[in-house]
Amino acid sequence: MGAHAGIVVTGTEVLTGRVTDRNGPWLAEALRQLGVDVAHVLVVGDRLADLRSALLFLAGTGVDLVITSGGLGPTADDLTTEVVGDVQGRPSVLDPELERRIHAIVTGLMSRRGWHLHPEATAAGVRKQAMVPAGAAVLEPIGTAPGLVVPVAEGRSGPPVLVLPGPPAELQGMWPAALADPAVHQALHRRTEIRQQTLRLWNTPESELAATLRHLEPGLGGLEITTCLRGGELEVVTRYGPAEQPAYDALAAAMQRAYGQALFSPDGRTVDDIVADALQQRHLTIATAESCTGGLLAGRLTDRAGASGWVQGGLVVYSDMAKRDLAGVPAELLERVGAVSAEVALALAEEARSRLGADVGVGITGIAGPGGGSQDKPVGLVHLCVVGPSGRLPKRVELPGSRDDVRARSVTLAMHMLRELLTG
Amino acid sequence: MGAHAGIVVTGTEVLTGRVTDRNGPWLAEALRQLGVDVAHVLVVGDRLADLRSALLFLAGTGVDLVITSGGLGPTADDLTTEVVGDVQGRPSVLDPELERRIHAIVTGLMSRRGWHLHPEATAAGVRKQAMVPAGAAVLEPIGTAPGLVVPVAEGRSGPPVLVLPGPPAELQGMWPAALADPAVHQALHRRTEIRQQTLRLWNTPESELAATLRHLEPGLGGLEITTCLRGGELEVVTRYGPAEQPAYDALAAAMQRAYGQALFSPDGRTVDDIVADALQQRHLTIATAESCTGGLLAGRLTDRAGASGWVQGGLVVYSDMAKRDLAGVPAELLERVGAVSAEVALALAEEARSRLGADVGVGITGIAGPGGGSQDKPVGLVHLCVVGPSGRLPKRVELPGSRDDVRARSVTLAMHMLRELLTG
Repeated sequence: MGAHAGIVVTGTEVLTGRVTDRNGPWLAEALRQLGVDVAHVLVVGDRLADLRSALLFLAGTGVDLVITSGGLGPTADDLTTEVVGDVQGRPSVLDPELERRIHAIVTGLMSRRGWHLHPEATAAGVRKQAMVPAGAAVLEPIGTAPGLVVPVAEGRSGPPVLVLPGPPAELQGMWPAALADPAVHQALHRRTEIRQQTLRLWNTPESELAATLRHLEPGLGGLEITTCLRGGELEVVTRYGPAEQPAYDALAAAMQRAYGQALFSPDGRTVDDIVADALQQRHLTIATAESCTGGLLAGRLTDRAGASGWVQGGLVVYSDMAKRDLAGVPAELLERVGAVSAEVALALAEEARSRLGADVGVGITGIAGPGGGSQDKPVGLVHLCVVGPSGRLPKRVELPGSRDDVRARSVTLAMHMLRELLTG
Repeated sequence: MGAHAGIVVTGTEVLTGRVTDRNGPWLAEALRQLGVDVAHVLVVGDRLADLRSALLFLAGTGVDLVITSGGLGPTADDLTTEVVGDVQGRPSVLDPELERRIHAIVTGLMSRRGWHLHPEATAAGVRKQAMVPAGAAVLEPIGTAPGLVVPVAEGRSGPPVLVLPGPPAELQGMWPAALADPAVHQALHRRTEIRQQTLRLWNTPESELAATLRHLEPGLGGLEITTCLRGGELEVVTRYGPAEQPAYDALAAAMQRAYGQALFSPDGRTVDDIVADALQQRHLTIATAESCTGGLLAGRLTDRAGASGWVQGGLVVYSDMAKRDLAGVPAELLERVGAVSAEVALALAEEARSRLGADVGVGITGIAGPGGGSQDKPVGLVHLCVVGPSGRLPKRVELPGSRDDVRARSVTLAMHMLRELLTG
């Protein structure tokens, strides 16, 4: 029947979207790799009653382990330890040894940063962070906050709660110690292998995929298939136990037959992976010249470690002056066909390539909006061009959505054009 | 006592972090502005039982309205309508008029995109999307999926469920119609004004803020204060009812006295707002030259509509060759002090400015890692420089964290250096 865990992410800043939660997804995936299933991630604000009801809900779903992230700082809105101790029937007490260790960390941090703080203020914050529910195990701080493993009080039943800090680097750094804790280990002892495979399709309608899956359905028993459309890519993720491997293989083969080239990634690699690998394997370098995307394509190409092996650099030519002076697009051309045109996209790709001495060049020019559109050239109109040793690929699109959408979609489209040019 | 809503975000792709949820935060903020409080956002995968338990949990917390996003597509893993109908005691029936309208939308979409699909496959998907719980109100599709307002069955008690589509543009587009629905309007009739104010501090330790707030505490009754540290910025968000305005004003004044310049935003404006406004008001233009951040600063500066009024463009000089050939950094300098140096950061800022004819220039060069570090120049070492009409500001930092962290922190730091140069 497998092992199950539930996750509570605390923080009003997460609930209201001022900060994007990275911990829920990271924990869900780390647990999946361990063979632990997650059904719910709850995001709650920094309020006692709301956190309490979230913990009780998860315990009530029958999970083997509850994991919390956040709410362990020195400020008054950090109340996870208190609430977890309360729910588990274990009131908190000061751990003087832990207090000493945290104090050393905090004062070291302050002095390295050249920050001066009243000793009493420091001491009060440290004391708060050294309160530990009676009988809980302490996980040593990665930052300043310790993690905790809090079993339910004796004589009561319920899952243990693993309390982790909110900063992703601290949470991830503490994960190995958390898994090594005997109570956590025991809670997850029923874990079983959960496999996950991803197929990616480009330029395929979701209803067509739905029809294909409906057609294959009799053979899909035991596979948990989820599909997701984003930025023109259709992602098909399948989870299954080891016994279902033949069913998955049959699905993958049927998808390959049905979609051919549109199934650009049969093995889960992203378009970024494919482009980076193609550049690297063929010893090609790349350069960009971007107008409406303003550097986002260059930023994406340099995302991965080792990008210096193939990315030369790029031009951000936001103004017409920059297109002329920096990228050498002839003023006459800009005047005649306008900055948003197939001709300028091609010129940008060629100039990026030649000015940066790269093998492959990309040019993007468009109207991201919300202003700047016209009858002939509406908001969302983008011209792209990729040029390489084996030829060139131009494209004209009218993209829907907001300014952010148009910019993001343009960058993804450019990645797929690169993929086609380099691997097609 | 106010109105309360609970939110369920569906989708295994969101639960596992393959897609970042934008709907939960958007809805929470839209509700806050209406005067409706949100305590929980639940993220659930595409499984019947998990969605069911999430809906029952929220109804059990006593909220006035439950809102769902996602799970309304044509594929088999889209099961929100079915589960909501079931929980509310209202089995779904086909709405033939709605089926006709969705069919017209889908076939129009297909033909515009040049996609060809078997008529039966289209019809099956459309039929699924036209199933409506008996007695529910239909909200017209923005994309292909209709929204729903599903009251609880007669004779039973519980909040109505507002069912919205997953794509953010569709969800947001449907929001006005959802609010105009009589059942939604009635559910939220107890809403009261909830004010929210934000203060932003730069380069201030969280424990110092904790001490300040602890000191002020006797006067803070009725204010809900949350603090959040991210990328070196400390954000203090306060929510309160109209009666607490004097308490908030006193807090804001006390914070101003305690932190002076470090409180760079007393009115919630972001550093991006402040830099854009300063450039615009002073009629200054800006250009960038980026190495380790690879275009992300230019991408951020061009994020906002109207950026063409002040952003000229930028250079992405990822390779040493690009630094030399594109930005004109002397080969001798690169050889003598290395690409990651104060001298090169200054040269990049100056060259960005002069080559793009801008008033303000920014140069960034550093080691984002994970490779490429040395004893003298460790991973995380970044040199930045901003140059403007009123002088220059250089900075050397050693940033902790991953490659992504170093790149993101460098960009934020550059924004604050621009703020200081332009408004200091």
